[in-house]
Amino acid sequence: MPTLYGLGVGPGDPELITLKALKILKEVPVIVAPKSRQEGESLALEIVVRVLGPAVADKETVELHFPMTRDPARLAGAWREAAGTVAGHLRRGRDVAFVTLGDPTFYSTYFLLLEELIRLVPEARMVTVPAVTSVSACAARLNLPLVQGDESLAVVSGARDPEALRRVIEDFDCTVVLKVGRHLPRLMETLKDLGLEERAVLATRCGLPGERLGSPAGPGEADYLSLLVVKK
Amino acid sequence: MPTLYGLGVGPGDPELITLKALKILKEVPVIVAPKSRQEGESLALEIVVRVLGPAVADKETVELHFPMTRDPARLAGAWREAAGTVAGHLRRGRDVAFVTLGDPTFYSTYFLLLEELIRLVPEARMVTVPAVTSVSACAARLNLPLVQGDESLAVVSGARDPEALRRVIEDFDCTVVLKVGRHLPRLMETLKDLGLEERAVLATRCGLPGERLGSPAGPGEADYLSLLVVKK
Repeated sequence: MPTLYGLGVGPGDPELITLKALKILKEVPVIVAPKSRQEGESLALEIVVRVLGPAVADKETVELHFPMTRDPARLAGAWREAAGTVAGHLRRGRDVAFVTLGDPTFYSTYFLLLEELIRLVPEARMVTVPAVTSVSACAARLNLPLVQGDESLAVVSGARDPEALRRVIEDFDCTVVLKVGRHLPRLMETLKDLGLEERAVLATRCGLPGERLGSPAGPGEADYLSLLVVKK
Repeated sequence: MPTLYGLGVGPGDPELITLKALKILKEVPVIVAPKSRQEGESLALEIVVRVLGPAVADKETVELHFPMTRDPARLAGAWREAAGTVAGHLRRGRDVAFVTLGDPTFYSTYFLLLEELIRLVPEARMVTVPAVTSVSACAARLNLPLVQGDESLAVVSGARDPEALRRVIEDFDCTVVLKVGRHLPRLMETLKDLGLEERAVLATRCGLPGERLGSPAGPGEADYLSLLVVKK
């Protein structure tokens, strides 16, 4: 029975891949990676190339192109096409690893593919391989305990509305804001209001070349891979 | 300069350790693991033994014993003693890996040790090595996306009071309750009130021998390593 692996390669440092993910990458004949203008998505394949070395030449690597759009119809069409490509491999009995930066259960597009494939190739085995998240990697770089004892952690998107975000930061011991990007000035205002500016750390490209860690200095500093940690 | 590594071995499956953690375990002369009646803590050393194989015999392994108490004075005393032992190794120029089950930034005792050692051996380098959390591992086993798109995730302890927990579950797309244990009946009542019983999955010993995944059937099912996932 062919297997589709939803395989996390970790947050960026190739050494933060798991033994299990590396073993599966060595075994599967087909490696599929999404590719779009969002940088995170092509980084996954770069990590695969680095950990496999020359052995990657023996694999069929498939890059799936997705439009950078929020138009559901265009996106759904792109996903159906991608799922069709992957289904073709599975039906020919070939195991496929769909690779994602970070952890596949954590803000990955993998589950869009999975849902489609459960319909297309119901006989395939679907195995999700967990990985280190960017949140853990960033906290580790800062030697910062996200949560201890009975503390609580919230993870939210930068797109969250300011009033809701304010309540979250008030209620939780630690709040991590992902996908900061253009929302940074608004987030900083909320933190200033709460008197928590000094407790916030902005991490951009954590564990990747060009890493920046420190106080969120102002607008223009954050990108799609930036995250903000507020530990009280 | 000697280095203290706060090293996560992942959620339980030895294959879910990272390449980086394995490399460091092979290099360091001293491996320190906390040991108490809480099972999670001795599991970390078991995983080390499994991934290192016979090479573990060349290491000095130190088990630190902590009393199972909430008495701050007794705990602080135990931590000071443990830190003294680790400091002794670092002062003799020997690198030390303090191993934790799961990720060290995520509900680990490692940072209690770190704080003490920064005082005792300020010249030592402190490096935290992130790992796969039990939360990611459990979601992966269930093929469940914790969060997608702009969704939000809350992680709370089972000790959280019912009213606060209720608000969290209402406000977040996904809530994970850790350290469920004896709090399960109370948690189930809250879920029943919210009509979310069917959306909850209880995971006990996820990825470990004796794993149980499924609907939270009733009292007595959960232990210290159980977690409850509520995805709306």
